[in-house]
Amino acid sequence: MPVELKGNILVTGANRGLGLELVKQLAETTGQEAHIYACSREPEGSRTEALRQLTTRHPGKITIIKLDVADEESISAAVQAVQDQIGDAGLNILINNAGIRKPALSGALSATKKNDMMEVYETNVVGPFTIAKVGLFSAEVGNDKTACSSAIINISTAISSIEKCPETFSAAQMYPYRISKAALNMLTRCQAEDFKTHNIVVTAIHPGWVQTEMGGENAPLTTVDSVLGMLSVISSLSNKDRGMLLDWQGNTIPW
Amino acid sequence: MPVELKGNILVTGANRGLGLELVKQLAETTGQEAHIYACSREPEGSRTEALRQLTTRHPGKITIIKLDVADEESISAAVQAVQDQIGDAGLNILINNAGIRKPALSGALSATKKNDMMEVYETNVVGPFTIAKVGLFSAEVGNDKTACSSAIINISTAISSIEKCPETFSAAQMYPYRISKAALNMLTRCQAEDFKTHNIVVTAIHPGWVQTEMGGENAPLTTVDSVLGMLSVISSLSNKDRGMLLDWQGNTIPW
Ligand SMILES: NC(=O)c1ccc[n+]([C@@H]2O[C@H](COP(=O)([O-])OP(=O)(O)OC[C@H]3O[C@@H](n4cnc5c(N)ncnc54)[C@H](OP(=O)(O)O)[C@@H]3O)[C@@H](O)[C@H]2O)c1
Ligand SMILES: NC(=O)c1ccc[n+]([C@@H]2O[C@H](COP(=O)([O-])OP(=O)(O)OC[C@H]3O[C@@H](n4cnc5c(N)ncnc54)[C@H](OP(=O)(O)O)[C@@H]3O)[C@@H](O)[C@H]2O)c1
Repeated sequence: MPVELKGNILVTGANRGLGLELVKQLAETTGQEAHIYACSREPEGSRTEALRQLTTRHPGKITIIKLDVADEESISAAVQAVQDQIGDAGLNILINNAGIRKPALSGALSATKKNDMMEVYETNVVGPFTIAKVGLFSAEVGNDKTACSSAIINISTAISSIEKCPETFSAAQMYPYRISKAALNMLTRCQAEDFKTHNIVVTAIHPGWVQTEMGGENAPLTTVDSVLGMLSVISSLSNKDRGMLLDWQGNTIPW
Repeated sequence: MPVELKGNILVTGANRGLGLELVKQLAETTGQEAHIYACSREPEGSRTEALRQLTTRHPGKITIIKLDVADEESISAAVQAVQDQIGDAGLNILINNAGIRKPALSGALSATKKNDMMEVYETNVVGPFTIAKVGLFSAEVGNDKTACSSAIINISTAISSIEKCPETFSAAQMYPYRISKAALNMLTRCQAEDFKTHNIVVTAIHPGWVQTEMGGENAPLTTVDSVLGMLSVISSLSNKDRGMLLDWQGNTIPW
């Protein structure tokens, strides 16, 4: 069964960068019945200003949810808040987009602290792990009785490819980050197996190298083009894409 | 240049299981000039009894070093203790063998806590990361002026293969463990690139399914046969094995 961009859609790290653009394009292009849960760890803060404005421009379409993916209690509270609204309908699409890269610069071995390794893993891997675990995506989803599959999209990166590491390492060492994203790929593939019976397609997507705070100014892609590509990929996902790593143009990246 | 089983060799988690058998066979088969640093997080405790006996049976061959790979200060102290003994000679082989699997049973999503994810990563990935970082393996090693390469061996597992996950997942879900070992594979491949110029071969090895506390009674392989295989693989490593995942028989496992 194909994945469709409809129903309840949740995006983490939605206050800026790729997450914000995902919410924007979803708000503009999905049908009336679709609703977007846009998560931010500081809904009231200045870093969420643009998301609040977007929400005002699309009345009734977007709900901002407070969510820090590195905090278990915050995840529980966010899941509860979403479930209170959606009830039995369940979530149709979860996009685990929130992510960090530390240390700020190269991420060379000598410049990386133990804590960088732990924190990046906590946010980039254990966050998506815990969100899946606490139940938004479990029986509820499989039971949503629509004719399309649900989906979990884990935003990964091309430099998560262990295979391609010799080609990419010298330009972007980033030990904690690329190790965490390789781990996220394994999580993706485990969940793809685990959630088969619930009819949830779990796929990792590389957004391209994109102009955001993380991607920097030299990135060749705009958030607009990256998100156009990713949403087109997501809306054409089917069973054969379970547990794969695809780029924003739909190409498969090797593990 | 090939790797040779000689010089200063360090094994973590050497008090039982595969680590203990590695030290035993290394003590029995290496030449007089070889010295083994056998690490245990509780050198005086009852769990290290067998290693202490082994050390007594091979006078002057084995030094027991206190090392908890999940503790940065313990790593610094252990590295200092080893460096005090080996001086400029440097380490020839480092075997990152210490590892944990949590939770004890299946490691299914619902049975796994956030802390399991964090602790398993800390020991299995950040441990080897930090040991490499604090300097035992840096210029010192590349400068050891012998005609053979040095080596870092990261003990991984077949179920770290993201590619093969669909075949292995139902028999052994083990989320935190297999995710950590996929991450360890990425660390291995990064270090393989990083340490090329220091003439250090970095390779991940799957020991097989082995009768140890971790492997359990139903495992088909004894520690003796697994270690015989692994030492044969290690002593025939060359540049083409940099950043690969091999099993105890030398076969390549895909990422
Ligand atoms: N840009 C690229 O070139 C590129 C390439 C490959 C992959 N990616 C991936 O794409 C995703 C989005 O990246 P981006 O470029 O948009 O990055 P970004 O501009 O740095 O934005 C990151 C987003 O994640 C949020 N976030 C970080 N930690 C969080 C936490 N603990 N809880 C909740 N939210 C958290 C941030 O919120 P705050 O404002 O509160 O910090 C922000 O909304 C990431 O997973 C990244 O790894 C990006
Ligand atoms: N057995 C198998 O079938 C199998 C298969 C694939 C891979 N492996 C891998 O092979 C390696 C050895 O496994 P094994 O079967 O020998 O396991 P084991 O019998 O459970 O022994 C694990 C060893 O690691 C040590 N260790 C754990 N945490 C540590 C820490 N924080 N600091 C220092 N030492 C620590 C333990 O010391 P304590 O006594 O202090 O706990 C023990 O010496 C592991 O990396 C494992 O993942 C095993």
